[in-house]
Amino acid sequence: MSLNWLEIEKIAKEWTLEAGEKVKEALHNPIEVKSKSNPHDLVTEVDKKTEQFFYQKIKQTFPDHHFLGEEGIAEEGILQSLDGTVWIIDPIDGTMNFVHQKYNFAISVGVYHNGLGMVGMIYDVMSNEFFHASRDNGAYLNGEELVPVKERVLDESIIGVNGKWLVEERNVYQNPLRALVRDVRSIRSYGSAAIEMAYVAADRLDGYISVKLSPWDYAAALVILKEVGCVASSFAGNELSLLDSGTVIAAKPQLHKEIISSYLGEEF
Amino acid sequence: MSLNWLEIEKIAKEWTLEAGEKVKEALHNPIEVKSKSNPHDLVTEVDKKTEQFFYQKIKQTFPDHHFLGEEGIAEEGILQSLDGTVWIIDPIDGTMNFVHQKYNFAISVGVYHNGLGMVGMIYDVMSNEFFHASRDNGAYLNGEELVPVKERVLDESIIGVNGKWLVEERNVYQNPLRALVRDVRSIRSYGSAAIEMAYVAADRLDGYISVKLSPWDYAAALVILKEVGCVASSFAGNELSLLDSGTVIAAKPQLHKEIISSYLGEEF
Repeated sequence: MSLNWLEIEKIAKEWTLEAGEKVKEALHNPIEVKSKSNPHDLVTEVDKKTEQFFYQKIKQTFPDHHFLGEEGIAEEGILQSLDGTVWIIDPIDGTMNFVHQKYNFAISVGVYHNGLGMVGMIYDVMSNEFFHASRDNGAYLNGEELVPVKERVLDESIIGVNGKWLVEERNVYQNPLRALVRDVRSIRSYGSAAIEMAYVAADRLDGYISVKLSPWDYAAALVILKEVGCVASSFAGNELSLLDSGTVIAAKPQLHKEIISSYLGEEF
Repeated sequence: MSLNWLEIEKIAKEWTLEAGEKVKEALHNPIEVKSKSNPHDLVTEVDKKTEQFFYQKIKQTFPDHHFLGEEGIAEEGILQSLDGTVWIIDPIDGTMNFVHQKYNFAISVGVYHNGLGMVGMIYDVMSNEFFHASRDNGAYLNGEELVPVKERVLDESIIGVNGKWLVEERNVYQNPLRALVRDVRSIRSYGSAAIEMAYVAADRLDGYISVKLSPWDYAAALVILKEVGCVASSFAGNELSLLDSGTVIAAKPQLHKEIISSYLGEEF
């Protein structure tokens, strides 16, 4: 079957908006929260139900497509390869915000074909901002096309970075991160990697940095960023893996290059 | 003349919404940016025009009221006393966001009578969130009443703080701030003090900290925070001055107390 990516983008958008409505409804009820790997790594029934919603929709509509989600509900378990069409989904990116703020969280949906990013959508549910893109068709915010980004020099740039990483003793990147934060104009921290990378694409941030993200955190963002001329890699400058976690710099190309060459690119 | 504060709140709300429309329109044109005290302290024609708009409205409608605004356009210059009725206005709080993001900035309007906060409104223009309160009449977000805040323990709290202060060598509060950031669950930074304090009132943040704010940054927020049971003071625990700049902690009462007693309250 020949895949029509604009059609898949349209379907993915409908499902994402529908999932968003369900999440909004769920916020009227008390949210049951559990911890995962550590006390601050939270998950709720809403994360799980939202992932289940996408999984069922995809399996019914595209039975040969594969699925990778943060909550791991797909029966095939961990994805071993990127062959074929793979949906990579974070049902609620920014779960801590979802629990504490009931605000500033996003549904992130990326669709890849043989490892290439084809469709990406990031839905900031409560702010009602829908960022989406499909390969070579441009990126959009609420239907308005995002323009190719313009560079700013590093000391006039605003980057997204979590201030906790500047103070955690175990963080091997602490010193170069501190130097970078000292040198840029300002930093922001919104608590949702997907929203922060969407902000890079929308030119609200010049770059975004994380010491650890997983494929579902950036799968959608990579598609959107590429359409406006932004780039993303690990701190070492390597392509981001869709099968493994690691460091992330997503930024305008010159800034990305400078952050790697002058701050974060050396071996730690 | 006996002042009707609900009436003044209504008028202030109309003016603030009208000012917000003008600011949105101004975003269609290029923004001319100037630096003030340092290269990162920005001001635009939009800041000045918005302040002028409020000043004229107030002088026409309430000729005996006084005016204090960030851009200092009032003819009386710096305010010497809080006698009578004083409007304290930041025409665009988060000017750097306004310039870089065209998003995440607020109009902040506080009305004080003989030093008492009577009316406060913070309008996040682009997110279309209107926080407002008048003394003893509760606080509201887009017409929905905000409930009295519930405390969280410090290590499950999210606080608003600018990560730059964790790395600036001249900052005398660096070490206690680092300790605090290490101990809380997470931090956020939105780049607008008014929005961050409104988020404390709306229970999206448990607290907000700044090493330096001016009266126009917090005049509106203080009125809103009080209505939901939050408190604000300097790091030393003193009442915030409406005539001078200084350190600020705005938080839920227990958290506020703990931040002062365990982290920021000692003399530096």
